[in-house]
Amino acid sequence: MLTGKNMIAGVWRAATEHFSAVDAASGAALEPAFAHATAQDVADACAAAAAAQPAYAALPLSRRAAFLRLVADKIDALGDTLTQRAMQESGLPEARLNGERGRTVGQLRLFADEVENGAWQGLRIDHAQPDRAPLPKPDLRMRNIPLGPVAVFGASNFPLAFSVAGGDTASAWAAGCCVVVKGHPAHPGTSELVAGAILEAIREAEMPEGVFSLVNGTANALGEALVNDPRIAAVGFTGSRAGGLALMGHAAARPVPIPVYAEMSSVNPVVLMPHRLAEAAESLAAAYVGSLSLGAGQFCTNPGILLAVESEATTRFIGSVAEALEGIPAQTMLTAGIQSAYTKGIAAIVEQGATMVGTGAEGSAACGRAHVFTVSGASFRANPALGHEVFGPSSIIVTCADIGEVAAILEGMEGQLTATLHMAQADYDAARTLLPILENRAGRIIANAWPTGVEVTHAMVHGGPFPATSDGRSTSVGTLAIARFLRPVSYQDLPAALLPKALLDGPSAVLRRIDGRYQVQG
Amino acid sequence: MLTGKNMIAGVWRAATEHFSAVDAASGAALEPAFAHATAQDVADACAAAAAAQPAYAALPLSRRAAFLRLVADKIDALGDTLTQRAMQESGLPEARLNGERGRTVGQLRLFADEVENGAWQGLRIDHAQPDRAPLPKPDLRMRNIPLGPVAVFGASNFPLAFSVAGGDTASAWAAGCCVVVKGHPAHPGTSELVAGAILEAIREAEMPEGVFSLVNGTANALGEALVNDPRIAAVGFTGSRAGGLALMGHAAARPVPIPVYAEMSSVNPVVLMPHRLAEAAESLAAAYVGSLSLGAGQFCTNPGILLAVESEATTRFIGSVAEALEGIPAQTMLTAGIQSAYTKGIAAIVEQGATMVGTGAEGSAACGRAHVFTVSGASFRANPALGHEVFGPSSIIVTCADIGEVAAILEGMEGQLTATLHMAQADYDAARTLLPILENRAGRIIANAWPTGVEVTHAMVHGGPFPATSDGRSTSVGTLAIARFLRPVSYQDLPAALLPKALLDGPSAVLRRIDGRYQVQG
Repeated sequence: MLTGKNMIAGVWRAATEHFSAVDAASGAALEPAFAHATAQDVADACAAAAAAQPAYAALPLSRRAAFLRLVADKIDALGDTLTQRAMQESGLPEARLNGERGRTVGQLRLFADEVENGAWQGLRIDHAQPDRAPLPKPDLRMRNIPLGPVAVFGASNFPLAFSVAGGDTASAWAAGCCVVVKGHPAHPGTSELVAGAILEAIREAEMPEGVFSLVNGTANALGEALVNDPRIAAVGFTGSRAGGLALMGHAAARPVPIPVYAEMSSVNPVVLMPHRLAEAAESLAAAYVGSLSLGAGQFCTNPGILLAVESEATTRFIGSVAEALEGIPAQTMLTAGIQSAYTKGIAAIVEQGATMVGTGAEGSAACGRAHVFTVSGASFRANPALGHEVFGPSSIIVTCADIGEVAAILEGMEGQLTATLHMAQADYDAARTLLPILENRAGRIIANAWPTGVEVTHAMVHGGPFPATSDGRSTSVGTLAIARFLRPVSYQDLPAALLPKALLDGPSAVLRRIDGRYQVQG
Repeated sequence: MLTGKNMIAGVWRAATEHFSAVDAASGAALEPAFAHATAQDVADACAAAAAAQPAYAALPLSRRAAFLRLVADKIDALGDTLTQRAMQESGLPEARLNGERGRTVGQLRLFADEVENGAWQGLRIDHAQPDRAPLPKPDLRMRNIPLGPVAVFGASNFPLAFSVAGGDTASAWAAGCCVVVKGHPAHPGTSELVAGAILEAIREAEMPEGVFSLVNGTANALGEALVNDPRIAAVGFTGSRAGGLALMGHAAARPVPIPVYAEMSSVNPVVLMPHRLAEAAESLAAAYVGSLSLGAGQFCTNPGILLAVESEATTRFIGSVAEALEGIPAQTMLTAGIQSAYTKGIAAIVEQGATMVGTGAEGSAACGRAHVFTVSGASFRANPALGHEVFGPSSIIVTCADIGEVAAILEGMEGQLTATLHMAQADYDAARTLLPILENRAGRIIANAWPTGVEVTHAMVHGGPFPATSDGRSTSVGTLAIARFLRPVSYQDLPAALLPKALLDGPSAVLRRIDGRYQVQG
């Protein structure tokens, strides 16, 4: 049922060079071979996106919303076929992938609602004051318009929710941008299935076919060509720090630089405050091990660094962590490359003198075995490499002399997606001193929970200062993600006959700012 | 009364190297000599800004607003002293500088109101759903926080409104960011007077002194040091394309890249639609010449390119332009460097074979003489250099074969701050086809007016696609400019005792989005 072809604006296109999808658990090549997209494929996809852009952007918002909902329906309809292929290619378990499909269609529908809400258009009207002295005030009206075609890079660790029809694509479409996806080579079959669902939706909703293309391949040159194409106006990426930095470099070096929204690297510090730790060392240990080993630790928000003040409770906590680890099975990792990088990352932590707290069970060569280490605050500060992300089920417990050392370590950290405080009421005063540091370092601050798990909602920030992302002013999850692909345009004295409808005087169900006042009904 | 010193967080500091301010009209050096800031001065200013940042950001919004208003009052109080010094240093006339002072204090007061409006905080609350299956939904609350200390580069052409206490500084302060200004070396005395006013306001309002520093100098290394300082979180700049590109390069190459908001270069195309031109060739010609020569043409929004379809009316228009130019006196330019670049720019237009339509009166060597040229659409398209900004009172009339050629030329243009249509009702259908092209190319679309003149209000966009600015997602004028210096943070399940007050449940006068609904009163 899979063709192995790329999809260029509605046309399935073969190629002369191919690559294989791999069964994550066995390492065996999967059928069919996948066409490696050429420079011409990329150029044609971008040209089609640019050609479709004005028509797509000009559609009534109700039609844009209907298209997003239809894509969700078509993905739902893929059902078990999609789950089974994604399981083979990613090694992720069935329940997780069914859940991820639910999240993927859920966020498409959430963005459909958001499109119709319309407040993201940033509508503002300042009426003229023809009699103002010394000069008359003109009529000015503002709205946000789409940036233009967006290049989206699929992520390996969410083959559905951060891939072909994932959050970047959904938010770019919601903003009115056509999308060219560079599929992740670890799951080309999953990508093709989703692309097929999208194509059905495009035809049924009568969208311009350039609204979506999918190019697959394993060469860095493919992504480079996409980012360098002059018709691409912005980039969405989730992946490694090296990959994100490379795309940022290409985007900045273009004759016309473009924004890159790269979500790259985070160790997601978790602080166990003393009073909370004293009352719940054992349950915290169990939850910590559960969070760090979830999905073989292959989450952007994996708790890679845990900070606690040395105490009897901390000793108890570490003991309980060691025990809890014993029950954690090794899990198949997404790719052989990720597995091998994980093994090297573990070896580097050991080399830097961290003490092993415990490990999970051993598994096959394709698996990631859970590891937890501990170091003193002083050692951690002396070895900055310990603060780098190791993608997989590993974490380091840093035992600090006092809360001041916890604060100093947090202050010295790079930008993070999340920072977490576990605390009892008696910890609040100390927590209050840490909060400004955490705000400065992270996009999301979590109390008494674990960072894995990212709610797709309005108030979510899945972003954070560099290098957690390339642009800490943005989020890649939640409705605010639409803002990444918009820019404001102002219309001065434009006759009503030529104004966008949303900017006309009269009642409006959409939030607007009129003469400085926000109004839900104009 | 001037000291010639830099101002580092409340302390006037001397230096061993100096440079001179110059009387723009006579070229004579002005007293006193000005201290050239050292690398240490820059580092100390940035350190003070970083140290003051948490305290300034944490102040109640009412105090932040009161500070902005006090700065406005103190600048008003400088009165004629400020105008006289700015006249000497910039060569701009008295009425213009008094007007510019009004705009400067007006925008400080507008941003004070905006601070108190509070909607820019982007407050969102998503309440928990503890009973949701399969997983409970956490409580999530979002707000925008300041990016951190901002480096502002003063512009030569607005010694007040785009300089020490100009729009970049006002919007950064409004966002809660401390500011280090690199003063423009063409008006260091004006800068010092404004810095003195700011210092009085800082003391009277009891602000942390690191909220503002001013460093002066003529070396590129000074600006480089400022952009490279690890404590600087964002950059605001108005100036040349070369200068902006250099700062973008430094910012992108930092270990932690930061956003640069550079407003650089624009030729602001103006289209005279056929029916409008036929009915008003003479009055359009007079207004055009007035706009292009205003302030010796030293405006970012100067109408550098005018497009019209060949016709009898176009011939009449060009004749009237030639006549109107005769009455335009030469005007002192801001600096000898700008005057000399203008002369070279005019020579380059002549070299590229443009036909001279006419010139204004000749003046002294320090003056810019108005020039208007004309070329055919075909010549313009064959000589892309004709589309580059020449900063000063010059403009090129491009006569096109038909409206299709007008559209093609607009499509081929770089990003612009503004694009203008002069049209009668009979031109609307043709205008409708041009509007999507203009939206794609410019930040502001103007009907039946001239681009010079930028209203400071809510719906203004003074921005636009590269190279008009480095970041077309932003505006440097109007209340939306505050958004440049903010980033969102999300709080998950944070106890009410630790939440920012603005995010607590209960009534609120500030716009918030609660469970997806925008509410002016919670």
